[in-house]
Amino acid sequence: MSGTTSIDVTVRYAETDQMGLAYHANYLVWCDIARTEYLRERGLSYRTMEADGLLLAVVEAEVRYRASARYDDRLRIACWVRDVSSRRVEFGYAMEHAPSGRPVATARTALMALDATYAITRIPVEIRAALEPIPDPVRL
Amino acid sequence: MSGTTSIDVTVRYAETDQMGLAYHANYLVWCDIARTEYLRERGLSYRTMEADGLLLAVVEAEVRYRASARYDDRLRIACWVRDVSSRRVEFGYAMEHAPSGRPVATARTALMALDATYAITRIPVEIRAALEPIPDPVRL
Amino acid sequence: MSGTTSIDVTVRYAETDQMGLAYHANYLVWCDIARTEYLRERGLSYRTMEADGLLLAVVEAEVRYRASARYDDRLRIACWVRDVSSRRVEFGYAMEHAPSGRPVATARTALMALDATYAITRIPVEIRAALEPIPDPVRL
Amino acid sequence: MSGTTSIDVTVRYAETDQMGLAYHANYLVWCDIARTEYLRERGLSYRTMEADGLLLAVVEAEVRYRASARYDDRLRIACWVRDVSSRRVEFGYAMEHAPSGRPVATARTALMALDATYAITRIPVEIRAALEPIPDPVRL
Repeated sequence: MSGTTSIDVTVRYAETDQMGLAYHANYLVWCDIARTEYLRERGLSYRTMEADGLLLAVVEAEVRYRASARYDDRLRIACWVRDVSSRRVEFGYAMEHAPSGRPVATARTALMALDATYAITRIPVEIRAALEPIPDPVRL
Repeated sequence: MSGTTSIDVTVRYAETDQMGLAYHANYLVWCDIARTEYLRERGLSYRTMEADGLLLAVVEAEVRYRASARYDDRLRIACWVRDVSSRRVEFGYAMEHAPSGRPVATARTALMALDATYAITRIPVEIRAALEPIPDPVRL
Repeated sequence: MSGTTSIDVTVRYAETDQMGLAYHANYLVWCDIARTEYLRERGLSYRTMEADGLLLAVVEAEVRYRASARYDDRLRIACWVRDVSSRRVEFGYAMEHAPSGRPVATARTALMALDATYAITRIPVEIRAALEPIPDPVRL
Repeated sequence: MSGTTSIDVTVRYAETDQMGLAYHANYLVWCDIARTEYLRERGLSYRTMEADGLLLAVVEAEVRYRASARYDDRLRIACWVRDVSSRRVEFGYAMEHAPSGRPVATARTALMALDATYAITRIPVEIRAALEPIPDPVRL
């Protein structure tokens, strides 16, 4: 198990805007998909986590857009853990054009653990064990 | 209280696509907003209805796109009840350019009442009382 | 080449709503992805078609929701051509849970060919040749 | 003309997720709407700017989520210019619950001026004149 997980997405028509590019808010959706997959690769189902009453709510998000993405472009999104503490985890992301490796964007999101009443809670130990921080493989 | 409720929406940049028009799936979002307002004007809060365990889930949706809508266009969406029964309600919608009245689209959606376990249930009598069907004011 | 094309999508967190189900407007987005793939399997790139000045604009859409779809569910969307004329093509769709085959929804969308000025135009003959109607494999 | 522009948005059902909160990527959409209004209040139409061949593309976005927003909540989004140079403008945003003033989020986005070929270009002088930076009214 390496410290990063990658997924591929193809830019949907619905994700474009009249500028002819992928609308910028959608990058956060792709990060979200990569994050789900990161957890799944480590034996964790975010779906089950939520059903069990643990929410991971985004409290900070930052994206740096370096090159445009267009309809039908295939993008690769790499995801890793930057930092983890008892109640908070921060993920990093690097997005690139899938065939060429040309950088598209980098991002980071910080998430807080909440219980079913939206109160801040501790990340359970078995989940925290799977969230192993690594140094950023690219500069964010 | 007339039988229709109208809301205005301004087409968001996020709602456009690379064709330079409002992406077609968004019309259903606008219908949803009009439906919420229809209920509110009749003293019903869909938010409270859900909190009380009554869901209205869309089971059929149909849209006829008659003219395009573009970024920053102001649209007026009229909403009314076409038909109601013990467990189902059907809404009609007419969308037009707000200043000109030029038709943009018509639509209908049928919704089933569900309880908090997603089982089909009866529409409570006080809600049904507010859902008074009228003949379609325009041809759908 | 069979008359239908199928794609798989996994319901994104961003596609859910507070009812805990996939929001109904997103089904049209999945149909759109299936349609792109239908064309691609027949040697047509919708991206290239648009760059060449041919737009296919949705003029009618209808969805029948038969069972709910939830976060992280894997769905299979089959797509076929129901009808084609000189300026209009109608697609049918059947959506099911990918492992079980349990039906989720059916849909149809009609699209008009537009030129770069949004005027109705003829579907070029080489494109029309690829749009071969078949009888609906399931009842819509 | 003060240095900030405010808009109100009501959280749409389509903007919620299964956590029962507004999905985090939508905050960037609300910032976008506020930015359009900021320009309009200063006599600039982003729609016309684009038609004239000037694009403002988001190159950086950062959001700090401070409290949740729920379906049907009314939010007020204040927008101002933080910084402007010959080719780049940075906006700040403060989002709060509309009746109470309780903070919801802060954000900033940096945009680059692009011409119709997506090449970086200068912000025209008459547009730059309307983009007058002010000190952040709240801490971002």
